[in-house]
Amino acid sequence: MSWIKEITLEVPSLSDNTADIDRLRRYLSKTLKWEGPIEIDLDLVTKIPDFFRQNDFKFECCMFRDRSKIVITGIRERGSSFLGVAVDLGTTTYVIRIIDLKSKETLLEHSFINPQEKIGADILTRIHFATNKGVKELQDLIVDDINIRLKEMCDSLNRSVKDVFNMAVAGNTTMTHLFLGIDPKWIIREPYIPAVNEIDLIKAKDINIDLSPNSRIFCFPNIGSYFGGDLIAGILYTGIHRKEEISILVDVGTNAEVVLGNKDWLVACAGAAGPALETGMSKIGKRAGPGIIDRIRYDPDKKRFEYHTIGDLPPVGICGSGVIDLAATMFRWGLIDFRGKFVPDKAPSLFKELDGIWHIVIVPSEESGTKEDLLISQPEIDSLIRSKAAMYTILETITSTVGITFEDIKNFYVGGTFGNYIDPKSAIFIGMLPDIPIERFKGMGNTSLEGATLILKEPDFMEEIWEIQKKITYIELNVNQDFMMKFSAAKFLPHTDKERFPSVMSFFKNT
Amino acid sequence: MSWIKEITLEVPSLSDNTADIDRLRRYLSKTLKWEGPIEIDLDLVTKIPDFFRQNDFKFECCMFRDRSKIVITGIRERGSSFLGVAVDLGTTTYVIRIIDLKSKETLLEHSFINPQEKIGADILTRIHFATNKGVKELQDLIVDDINIRLKEMCDSLNRSVKDVFNMAVAGNTTMTHLFLGIDPKWIIREPYIPAVNEIDLIKAKDINIDLSPNSRIFCFPNIGSYFGGDLIAGILYTGIHRKEEISILVDVGTNAEVVLGNKDWLVACAGAAGPALETGMSKIGKRAGPGIIDRIRYDPDKKRFEYHTIGDLPPVGICGSGVIDLAATMFRWGLIDFRGKFVPDKAPSLFKELDGIWHIVIVPSEESGTKEDLLISQPEIDSLIRSKAAMYTILETITSTVGITFEDIKNFYVGGTFGNYIDPKSAIFIGMLPDIPIERFKGMGNTSLEGATLILKEPDFMEEIWEIQKKITYIELNVNQDFMMKFSAAKFLPHTDKERFPSVMSFFKNT
Repeated sequence: MSWIKEITLEVPSLSDNTADIDRLRRYLSKTLKWEGPIEIDLDLVTKIPDFFRQNDFKFECCMFRDRSKIVITGIRERGSSFLGVAVDLGTTTYVIRIIDLKSKETLLEHSFINPQEKIGADILTRIHFATNKGVKELQDLIVDDINIRLKEMCDSLNRSVKDVFNMAVAGNTTMTHLFLGIDPKWIIREPYIPAVNEIDLIKAKDINIDLSPNSRIFCFPNIGSYFGGDLIAGILYTGIHRKEEISILVDVGTNAEVVLGNKDWLVACAGAAGPALETGMSKIGKRAGPGIIDRIRYDPDKKRFEYHTIGDLPPVGICGSGVIDLAATMFRWGLIDFRGKFVPDKAPSLFKELDGIWHIVIVPSEESGTKEDLLISQPEIDSLIRSKAAMYTILETITSTVGITFEDIKNFYVGGTFGNYIDPKSAIFIGMLPDIPIERFKGMGNTSLEGATLILKEPDFMEEIWEIQKKITYIELNVNQDFMMKFSAAKFLPHTDKERFPSVMSFFKNT
Repeated sequence: MSWIKEITLEVPSLSDNTADIDRLRRYLSKTLKWEGPIEIDLDLVTKIPDFFRQNDFKFECCMFRDRSKIVITGIRERGSSFLGVAVDLGTTTYVIRIIDLKSKETLLEHSFINPQEKIGADILTRIHFATNKGVKELQDLIVDDINIRLKEMCDSLNRSVKDVFNMAVAGNTTMTHLFLGIDPKWIIREPYIPAVNEIDLIKAKDINIDLSPNSRIFCFPNIGSYFGGDLIAGILYTGIHRKEEISILVDVGTNAEVVLGNKDWLVACAGAAGPALETGMSKIGKRAGPGIIDRIRYDPDKKRFEYHTIGDLPPVGICGSGVIDLAATMFRWGLIDFRGKFVPDKAPSLFKELDGIWHIVIVPSEESGTKEDLLISQPEIDSLIRSKAAMYTILETITSTVGITFEDIKNFYVGGTFGNYIDPKSAIFIGMLPDIPIERFKGMGNTSLEGATLILKEPDFMEEIWEIQKKITYIELNVNQDFMMKFSAAKFLPHTDKERFPSVMSFFKNT
């Protein structure tokens, strides 16, 4: 299946004088076995009679749909180009991927800073700004940026934005609201109600996105205020909801979002994990990019760190996966103790006290791309410990809520911006992820973008979105006394209850 | 039932955190037992969260629908005004009727000249004009006029066009196409295919009709090029499709449209009847209005016509019903013979030869409002005869096609501009309508306008529209040899086969 259909209509005659539009609908209803509505914009209706006759009633038709209707997003001569655009609409960055709707190939993909960062890096600031009559401004920022970026991308492909018929957008609930120009203010006020979860197909021009005239934008539905369409897209991509065995998808960012389940049930929760796991926790923390450290090991003989940077360039920062590696290797070699506190005696030359705060030199100035020492401070390590503890506690809470153990989880999918880079061994070592067989961990990359792409390629997956939405139970993470106790117990490396991490313990025993 | 629903939503809570829009949809799906789509415009979505909370989730909601979806056309505080507008979109005149969607009362009604008359009085001229890049101009003419007229009407009611949420438009196929800005060119070219028969709800602003922001326009569906939504509206109003017994609806204008059937079947056809039956056949032929003769009798003793004018004003013209009366009374008193030819000997003082053409004086100059003789010429009577013969032949053809006789028709509904005024006795007398018991004839007024009004008052009737559309079989009137023979036979008064008109014959026998 594809959103593009090659159509040959029966030519009208005196004995079959069905109107042109009705004729097309009749054909589609029959061939698609679709009894629901088939929508055709009025301006397209006005063009169809001449177009049909110029093409002898043979043409290609692009469709899109939401839960209840199919929409004709474009009609072109046979052999025409039909593009689709998948957007992962992140709070910090967003990604545009252009695909050919016929061949289903990815033609181009780029990642951009969400220009709403100007207003505020975090979601809360943007929500407050929106509520103070800033919705339109926030919407314009992202819409204008998408228009500019997408045009540049299309230009570089020698295509036009007018060749784009279907766009699929996966974002969290707030980003989706802002994209549509909806004030998200009730999302952060008890009882935390989004304006809309299930979003009908949007006419691109209704929100000033510049695509072909009858194009539509599909926004993945939200489950609730803290569980958005990006996660639904992620579930769709990983296929948790199709499998017999139990899987988990963890999307790690500023928020940690978790989905657990199988083909019969799905539970989800989300909780704040702190910034340490996303753009890095420190002054030198950065998103993955050229010169960023993504792998790091400590050499106890040389008393220095061995690292790998993206593009093998002089190091300028460290990304989330690097930070996890760093904490693991420091713990491994005793540079931090089980509370995460620096142990300067282990390598006095690496530690520095600056303004009364202890720092450790990750990269000395002579090696660094910035010509300055790349440092991590004790408070930054403390922050990482809190983040990893939050992550573990969320995982512990959701599994115990449904009465399973970590051992029951057969697939552990890690998504999010650094899902592909994370070394599960390191994450287990610091007690961020549970100690289950390493081969069960699978870095999935940008699951939100992949889910959005999937829906552009395979119309049949559309139904699964509603199944996921229907099946999912969202568990509000009550940060109650029980949670706080679990969290406190997890604020150690790997955990106060060491028996939960036999592989880590056996490592210390063996060395 | 009504399109307005008073709604009290459950107030959201932590245990029921359904999004606002989803909450409204859930409520409506449940209370309306509707599983199809419920559409809410994005700009309305943006307003709903604050509106709900300002009104404690209690409000009134206006809906409208087409075949496959319900649309929320407005949400207001309780006790608000919701107006609906019914439009009979005629080729020559159009009528606007404003109703209160809650009380279902008619508030105001006016009839206006269709401003497209500027381009051409007849449909064909307008179609050619449209095809020569004139669609937009024709659309603008009617749209602008409706906007101006409707605003004036709303002003006079101390209301605003922003109080109008639902509009129902019933017009013939071409008028509907032009109203929507669709080039109707293929309607008049074999095999006569409209662009669209089944029309989705239209956003008023998409065609620049100025109503409330989320209002919708429902256009009655067409059956084919020569059988439009005005007729569907007419059938809906007369209820032919609900009755056990066979009924017929005849809409007489330049075109004669006929529907015959009962609750099990409906057949329809349309044919040219000539202009004589609509605006009148002659220089003095006019639409019903002040000073227009609508009833006329010949006084054989005084050798003059006795007439009634609308408003009892000095006569200035004669309308369709008057023309039929005139022909009947002239035939009755021998002023025309059975071929429709003048018999000047009968009243020499009434006949005049002007430019070699015989005329009869209907109203002498001293009595007329124009200070000139109101005359009818022989060619004008010939034209009437052709029209009445066409009408009768169409009726004969459609009944014989389905194998029934005129006697089987229990209700004979006469619609169209002069349906209310026509005297069936006169129409039978000249052989325009069949000779069945006089009490079976019912003048129905503007059935198209009444049907459009009905759909604004009673949502339940919406389903019947699709039933009618599905049930109806449109018979293309082949003007073949058989038809022409029947037509020739009908070009006599009342008919060559006199036995078909026993009441007329008995009249002559008795006098």
